[in-house]
Amino acid sequence: MARYKLTIEYDGRPYHGWQRQDHGPSVQQALEEAVLRFCQSETLVQCAGRTDAGVHATGQVAHFDAPRDYRCDRVRDGLNFHLRPHPVVVLAAEAVADDFHARFSAIGRSYLFRILNRRAPAGLDAGRVWWVPVALDADAMQQGADYLLGHHDFTTFRASECQAKSPMKTLDALSVTRVGEEIHVATSARSFLHHQVRNMVGTLKLVGEGKWRPEDMKRALDARDRSAGGPTCPPDGLYLTAVHYR
Amino acid sequence: MARYKLTIEYDGRPYHGWQRQDHGPSVQQALEEAVLRFCQSETLVQCAGRTDAGVHATGQVAHFDAPRDYRCDRVRDGLNFHLRPHPVVVLAAEAVADDFHARFSAIGRSYLFRILNRRAPAGLDAGRVWWVPVALDADAMQQGADYLLGHHDFTTFRASECQAKSPMKTLDALSVTRVGEEIHVATSARSFLHHQVRNMVGTLKLVGEGKWRPEDMKRALDARDRSAGGPTCPPDGLYLTAVHYR
Repeated sequence: MARYKLTIEYDGRPYHGWQRQDHGPSVQQALEEAVLRFCQSETLVQCAGRTDAGVHATGQVAHFDAPRDYRCDRVRDGLNFHLRPHPVVVLAAEAVADDFHARFSAIGRSYLFRILNRRAPAGLDAGRVWWVPVALDADAMQQGADYLLGHHDFTTFRASECQAKSPMKTLDALSVTRVGEEIHVATSARSFLHHQVRNMVGTLKLVGEGKWRPEDMKRALDARDRSAGGPTCPPDGLYLTAVHYR
Repeated sequence: MARYKLTIEYDGRPYHGWQRQDHGPSVQQALEEAVLRFCQSETLVQCAGRTDAGVHATGQVAHFDAPRDYRCDRVRDGLNFHLRPHPVVVLAAEAVADDFHARFSAIGRSYLFRILNRRAPAGLDAGRVWWVPVALDADAMQQGADYLLGHHDFTTFRASECQAKSPMKTLDALSVTRVGEEIHVATSARSFLHHQVRNMVGTLKLVGEGKWRPEDMKRALDARDRSAGGPTCPPDGLYLTAVHYR
């Protein structure tokens, strides 16, 4: 048996999310079917961050066990061959030790959220950005974001269906940058609560459009109450960009 | 009557190209139907560059005549409302003089061609880049490209179905740049022959992978024979980025 770590890019639009579902296609199913065709072996492909429906990845990480050794470039190219025509590709494959686990060995996750901030809707990037036509103040959003950095109870930004045992998380980075017609929100943490990134971005948008002051982010955080936060923003602009290991 | 100039972005994948067709959807039809719904008037929408099937635009320009005056932002927002859910958007609308013609008043067109040059196929950018897995030498491609600059007979890079009266064109720019995992070919001219950009890029790829020397581009150009050039590359990576007017 040989364990392989995969770095994966995908367009989340056609899928009901990472996780295998009875009622629709998933990224996991696409990968498990490609593994089955590549090494004639039914196996679980386990990922670091179970992205929701419509969420994309440029640096998802997963692992699986193959019944025998393969050259890593063969794994990458073979899986990509069998993944066609799915918009899911293996960027890299590495042989790893048996105790490597994509999810449990991860010490950090990074996400990017792209907001298209212009009057005209998304044409080329439909489904890949969140279109916000009202002008957003990125500096005010950054000031608001700064209140969330560090170790906090993030109940205000947690989905009701979140299964994490504790709402305590440590947010390592939350930066807001204007890039041409877009606003990019980049964030990193050891791990996130369910919908945490989308709830933080949906709330920061209220600051960006001037409905909230930056310091209202602190008030919302301190309330430890989902109803004190802003709405969950759509998945379209969210990308899992990297998973970090020791 | 009032004439409006539109700057347009679109994803070319769902369309048989710009031009209205009997047998499938076109960008022109999407726009003409939006104009009809917006101003209750059947009118021709005429563009500067009739892109082929699968070719994208970030700066296409077109014009149409409305039966009465509208505020320009209303034209933009109204057409965008009626264009939904097409991946076609009006970035800007301007009122122009009656003698403005998107095609005949244009004094230049700029295109970008994106090559994804890595072992893994396109995931997120499937249909929006040309995937070339073999490593390309951008410097050699640039040396080859330089032979095409200036006023020449471009028969070697002209589609057999091209309807232009003359194969003589003046190429003002043809730059090849590596941008991370991509190679970008940017080009400008007053106008191009049919398939000229895709034929130039398909031929430059031969230089990039070392099958041709840079100076073979000159030999191909001088032959004035389509069979002396490389293959037509796919439309996926091609973007009409700008149309220039006095």
